[in-house]
Amino acid sequence: MISQPLRGFGQMAPGDPLVSMELPDAGPLGATEVEIAVDHCSVCHSDVHLLDGDWGDVARPLVPGHEIVGRVVRSGPAAKISEGVLVGLGWQAGACGECLACRSEREHLCTGGKVRTCMGRQGGFADRVRCDARFCFELPPGLDPTTAAPLLCAGLTVFSPLERMGVREATRVGVIGVGGLGHLAVRFAAALGASVIAFDPDASKRELARSLGAADLVDARGPLPRGVVDLLLVTTHATLDWTTWMSVLDLEGTLCLVGIPGAPLTVSVDPLLDEQKRITGSVIGSTKTMRRMLSFAAEHGIAPIVERMPMSSANDAIARVREGRARMRIILDRRTT
Amino acid sequence: MISQPLRGFGQMAPGDPLVSMELPDAGPLGATEVEIAVDHCSVCHSDVHLLDGDWGDVARPLVPGHEIVGRVVRSGPAAKISEGVLVGLGWQAGACGECLACRSEREHLCTGGKVRTCMGRQGGFADRVRCDARFCFELPPGLDPTTAAPLLCAGLTVFSPLERMGVREATRVGVIGVGGLGHLAVRFAAALGASVIAFDPDASKRELARSLGAADLVDARGPLPRGVVDLLLVTTHATLDWTTWMSVLDLEGTLCLVGIPGAPLTVSVDPLLDEQKRITGSVIGSTKTMRRMLSFAAEHGIAPIVERMPMSSANDAIARVREGRARMRIILDRRTT
Repeated sequence: MISQPLRGFGQMAPGDPLVSMELPDAGPLGATEVEIAVDHCSVCHSDVHLLDGDWGDVARPLVPGHEIVGRVVRSGPAAKISEGVLVGLGWQAGACGECLACRSEREHLCTGGKVRTCMGRQGGFADRVRCDARFCFELPPGLDPTTAAPLLCAGLTVFSPLERMGVREATRVGVIGVGGLGHLAVRFAAALGASVIAFDPDASKRELARSLGAADLVDARGPLPRGVVDLLLVTTHATLDWTTWMSVLDLEGTLCLVGIPGAPLTVSVDPLLDEQKRITGSVIGSTKTMRRMLSFAAEHGIAPIVERMPMSSANDAIARVREGRARMRIILDRRTT
Repeated sequence: MISQPLRGFGQMAPGDPLVSMELPDAGPLGATEVEIAVDHCSVCHSDVHLLDGDWGDVARPLVPGHEIVGRVVRSGPAAKISEGVLVGLGWQAGACGECLACRSEREHLCTGGKVRTCMGRQGGFADRVRCDARFCFELPPGLDPTTAAPLLCAGLTVFSPLERMGVREATRVGVIGVGGLGHLAVRFAAALGASVIAFDPDASKRELARSLGAADLVDARGPLPRGVVDLLLVTTHATLDWTTWMSVLDLEGTLCLVGIPGAPLTVSVDPLLDEQKRITGSVIGSTKTMRRMLSFAAEHGIAPIVERMPMSSANDAIARVREGRARMRIILDRRTT
């Protein structure tokens, strides 16, 4: 198979618009690598951070996109996945395989050289992407490939802490922010049997939150109920009044960041000591968690709520996400123009 | 039995010295209460906070002391402990018994009305103290009553998080501060099988730390090793550079406050998210944990390191603790003058 030149939407400097361009050849495919022809790529807030230069210098052209659904078109000799298979690819495209994290099934915490899908390499706004075969995942039957893309990063990001913290029937889960991450968090938590309260400053999302499985939506601007949840998942990237939000937790409850606040966290020590509450965070998830998340989503009919736009509208899509105007998640479709 | 007038060392205003005085009669003994004749009472940093007015207004005269060993001299009709029994009493003297915390064996987190041994009532710097019988504990055989007093608060405070967080063989535990709390934390963690690193700005404590069971003592002023412990117990009440200390934890490790910093905690979100680390705290412990701690201490020969002074030297003892000059823990002995 002779590859066509690689094209995609890339950015040459922070703040610049994305431009359709021919991209540099990625060289020979590694033995354990696969190349995936992108069908769908959704837009995550991390893409906006990268494009806006919030996370410092990255290789240029920057081709964002890391919630990808497509088909394997080339497969290295040691890659255990066949050409033609429909797969998903998220934020992580490789790991060292040697460090303690990798050897303990926590590849997402790899300390020996994590590879990110759209940092230092072309992401899903290109025609084709590459990854180590361990980091693309065959979509289970029952999962609609036209809406699945957001599961690969947003879905994993919220499912992983829900699972790790043992959310199950009778767990009381709060979700701050009903957006790209938050709407999936509500769905997963409810499907795990939890009693869910959504928090959002936009009270018009109440019916939506209920339709996703939340018992109710509380106006995040307050007043906030006290002691009502065991786990509070923070899906916004805003810096909140953390001490106030800690009071929403019951004794020994956990506040878990999954959005990425732009400033250090400051919080009173009282809820940590007197109420033995915890603060933690969670970043994507392991390959095993990804497989369980995809199966769970298929089994429970959990599909992201998406808007659909052609890839040629990449700049519009980015602007909508930056301004918080996306209706949950925008999927860019390479197959339409 | 006709009670003698109650005497003790009390303070009339924040910052004043303690004065030997006759104390108001506490009224009839409650049905579930006991009265304990104090033999030994050790000095905790919380007593200094109370005396210095750091924790706001408290009832006066303030008679501090909440690490108490003595004998039951009166027992209410519904109190399940006999007169003459040698008991210990710590920070907590009562709880509502009705709230969810009480009903789930977490009386130390009681939300319905916690009673503190020396707040709103006379503490162990008095001849006699009272408590609900559920909150005094018969000392197990093998525990030396002349050194056991610090176990009742300091011992419980460090044992509870070690137990709750599942410390066992192969757990790597760091202990910041080798003092009243810290020296017991090192002993308990080592006896649980953990590999322990002590951190203290006074490197002359190295041999002491090793004799307590630590593999080594690291100068807390740095440079600090990175990623070396799973649990970091903060026994100091100083406000530290929390982001730097988080780097001493390995992936998914937990920083647990047991000292009470005077300022809110500020920390980078990066270790919480990218390394899934946790921040929490712990306050004393439940009655079940207290019993397990006392048995464990007796079984493993864990005795606090103490200096001994007569109760009449209460002001000297307080000054030594305030200035960090106590050699681990000072026990005030009522039986000597």
